[in-house]
Parts: sequence; C-alpha cells; structure tokens
Amino acid sequence: MRNIRLKVAYDGTNYHGFQRQHETHGPTIQGTLESVWARLVEEEVTLATAGRTDTGVHASGQVVNFMTQARIPEDKIPKAFNSMLPRDIKILQAECVSDDFNARWSAKWKRYDYQMDNKPIQDVFTRLYACHVPIPLNVALMQEAANLLEGRHNFKTFAAAGGASKTFERTIYRLLVKEDHGLIIVSCVGDGFLYHMVRIIVGTLMDVGKGRIRPQEIPEIIASQERRRAKMIAPAHGLSLVHVNYTEESPFEVFKDLRINDLT
Amino acid sequence: MRNIRLKVAYDGTNYHGFQRQHETHGPTIQGTLESVWARLVEEEVTLATAGRTDTGVHASGQVVNFMTQARIPEDKIPKAFNSMLPRDIKILQAECVSDDFNARWSAKWKRYDYQMDNKPIQDVFTRLYACHVPIPLNVALMQEAANLLEGRHNFKTFAAAGGASKTFERTIYRLLVKEDHGLIIVSCVGDGFLYHMVRIIVGTLMDVGKGRIRPQEIPEIIASQERRRAKMIAPAHGLSLVHVNYTEESPFEVFKDLRINDLT
Repeated sequence: MRNIRLKVAYDGTNYHGFQRQHETHGPTIQGTLESVWARLVEEEVTLATAGRTDTGVHASGQVVNFMTQARIPEDKIPKAFNSMLPRDIKILQAECVSDDFNARWSAKWKRYDYQMDNKPIQDVFTRLYACHVPIPLNVALMQEAANLLEGRHNFKTFAAAGGASKTFERTIYRLLVKEDHGLIIVSCVGDGFLYHMVRIIVGTLMDVGKGRIRPQEIPEIIASQERRRAKMIAPAHGLSLVHVNYTEESPFEVFKDLRINDLT
Repeated sequence: MRNIRLKVAYDGTNYHGFQRQHETHGPTIQGTLESVWARLVEEEVTLATAGRTDTGVHASGQVVNFMTQARIPEDKIPKAFNSMLPRDIKILQAECVSDDFNARWSAKWKRYDYQMDNKPIQDVFTRLYACHVPIPLNVALMQEAANLLEGRHNFKTFAAAGGASKTFERTIYRLLVKEDHGLIIVSCVGDGFLYHMVRIIVGTLMDVGKGRIRPQEIPEIIASQERRRAKMIAPAHGLSLVHVNYTEESPFEVFKDLRINDLT
C-alpha cells in the first residue's frame, strides 16, 4: 500500500463542490477524481482532502491523498490522470508520502484568495473567477479592517450555520487586500477556517470598502460572536484555495513582504 | 441620424466570430449586438467594425459604429445594452461621432495580444484565453525574431489564403514578447493586418521559441513571400483585439517603454 498525495487545480464553475454527493446533484471534484482513478487502474479509492470547497469555488493548490495498491509510478500519475480528466481539472503533482499523512489533518495552514472585479462594467474575462462589485471599494479601509482580523480570535461571528466545528478559535496569520488593474484580491492565510468563514470575512471587508462598516468596528464585531453582525456572504465564484502547507515553515516567515502574485 | 461608436469587450469562446452569418452556424458577436439593439429601440442597424475577429477570438477593445434614428442618449446606451446582452459581451463605452467616422476605415492602428500558457501542465484558469504550449519557449529568441518583424514589410508570407486584401504591405510598429508567471504575451501593434496575419506571426514566433527557426532566418522568411515558409497558425482562442486607435497619436510615442499591462 502506498499513500499518494496529489496537488490539484480546478475551475469549480461546473462542479457541485468538492465532496462526492450521495444523490446525483451533478458532478463533484472528488467524484470525478475517484472515478477517473477507478478507470485508470481498476481500483476504488476514497480521497481525503485539505479543503472541501463549496459549489463554484475554485482551487489552484488543493491537496488530496489516498491509499492505493496500484503499481503506477508516482511520476506517471499526473500525465495519466490528466489525459482522462475533463479540461477544468488538472493534477499538478503526485508524490508518495508517509502512511500517517492526511491531507486534512496534517495541514498546518492554508491560503485562500478571493477576487473582486471592481471595474464599473464587469470584465468578461474574469467573470467566472471574480465577484463583480461595480461600486468603487476603498482598498485602504479594507486593509485597515483586515489588519484587525489578523491574529487568534473566536471567529463565531464569521461562521455560517451548518458547520461541523465545535470550537471557533482560529488564527489568521495574514489577511491582505491588494488592488491590481481594477481587480481586488483578498488573500487569507490561516490555520483553519470555519464554514463559509473566508466568504463572510470578505463580505464584511466589502461592506468596509463601501463605507457601510468602519474598520474601528471590527474588534467589536468579532467580540460580539453574533453571526448577524457580519451579514454578507461573498459569492462562491470569487474564492480559490491557493496553497496548503504541511511543513513546519512559519506562515509569518513565508508571508513576510508578500506580494500577492509571488506564491501563485 | 446619429453615428454611434461603441467600445465592446467579448469572450469569443461561444461565438462563431464577429461577422453575422447568412446561414445559421451559431451566434456571432455582430448578430447578437444587432438583435439586442433591435429589441432595445425597435430599429434595424448594420454595424461596421474595426476588426472582424474569427471564431473563438476575443476582444477587450473592439470598436463598432452604426447610424441610428433612435433617441436614446449615448450615456444610457452601455447600461441598457448590457442589461440585455449575454454575460460574455459588454459595451464599455458609447459616444456620438461625426458622420464620416467608420470603425474600420478610420482606424489608424490596432493592437492585438496573443497569450500562451507556457507551464508544463495547462492552467485551468487561462485555458479559454491562452494557447497551451507545454514545451518551454525561449522568450529572448522570440523577442529577437519579433524585432526583425517590426517595420514596413510585404507580409505575404504571413497571409492565409482567403483574405480579401490585394496589397500585402503593412507596418508593424511594435511586436513585443513578455513573460509573466508562465504566461507569455505577444503584443502586436500595426496599421493593418492581413487574414490570419497575427496568428501566423505568433505561430512563427512559437517555432522560434522552440528552436525550430533561428531569429536570423526571419528576414529571408519575410522576403520569400511564400506562405509555406511560415507554417503554423496559432489557435484562435489565444488572440484578443485589445485596442483600436483613431487619433493622430503616434504608436511609437504611445508604445515607448510599453509595459504590456499598461494599456489594458
């Protein structure tokens, strides 16, 4: 038995999220990967994943793993897999890891990026990967609010109902807001995320950018632990799982002087 | 009667090119724009266009014009149009121009960009807008060849059969090759382009980047005026019409010290 870890990119537009569905709602990333593996080596496997992305959410650095008895060498897996996968899913890397590795539980920190198209008229070329916000957003105010969300907090205010988490303490190591040619990217690095947490944080930052919430209100909004204080959930299609880290590398070191495009 | 000029962006993926088709091959950009205008103000118009882009080719700065008797103010046109257009076409600007303006004949120069994804495994997020070239391309050699294509030449070598042009003399003011995070962009600014000319030039530059053609061969390939000397037509989906200029502004001045993203 080998434990295989894959790095996966996908355009989530046409998928009903990562997780395989019991009933047929439509294709999922997990279902597609598992069925291609079954066709490839005639073996049924169950994937573990770093982040069970929602319907419409993308990934440029998703990580999954599974145990296999198949003899295909690791370095042949990406090409073999990719030749059978639809064009909107790609295996970027495959490697053999120790038996105790689990894509979800072994993760030390993750990075999600959220893209907003802030041009008055929506850019047709980013429409599938960025949420269109026609009202000009104040990026400086958004960054001021973002700074106040960094650190270890109880993020209950930013957790949607329906999540499985029992604790709400999480650490956000970095929350950066950058503007580039009318595209605003919020980059969020943390040790773990509650249900819809990144999208609720981004929704709140949008409200800050529109002047509806002042950055100074953020500490009180966190402290309230009331979901209703952070109203907006940003739409799914702006979100992408960019990076999952499994090493002891400090996120502070890695993200020191981060320019947003450096990691992607 | 007013002569209305529109600046239009579109994702060409789902269209059979710009030009309205007599038979029904599928939707075209011109057909879609004309039918939305007809529904908007109950008037049939015929668009003139700066560039009749092929099937699958995109535009971020296409220009069209048409004569109209409708009374809708220019500044209301983009919003009214966009609310009825499919999500992959947007009117960016509308203005009233003098009667002798024609989007095609009044153009002084145009800029096309061609995008290549040069990562070993195709990037799912640029797959609709960049041609995937998995072999590493030598960008420095490509730029060396590009420099030799600049200037006024007879471009018959680079004209596909089927074009309507009788003369083959054209001027390329700038032909730049830039690499950014694995994406290679060829930016071509010229006073006019023969049938498939940009895609054949890009195909030739790809061959240079792969080491199949040496930059020093370019002058002879141009001089040969033989189509078979420039074999490859780069696929349509990497190409985009970015800018059309109607002023006396010199392309040399505008493109001096051009950083590729400055104009978009």
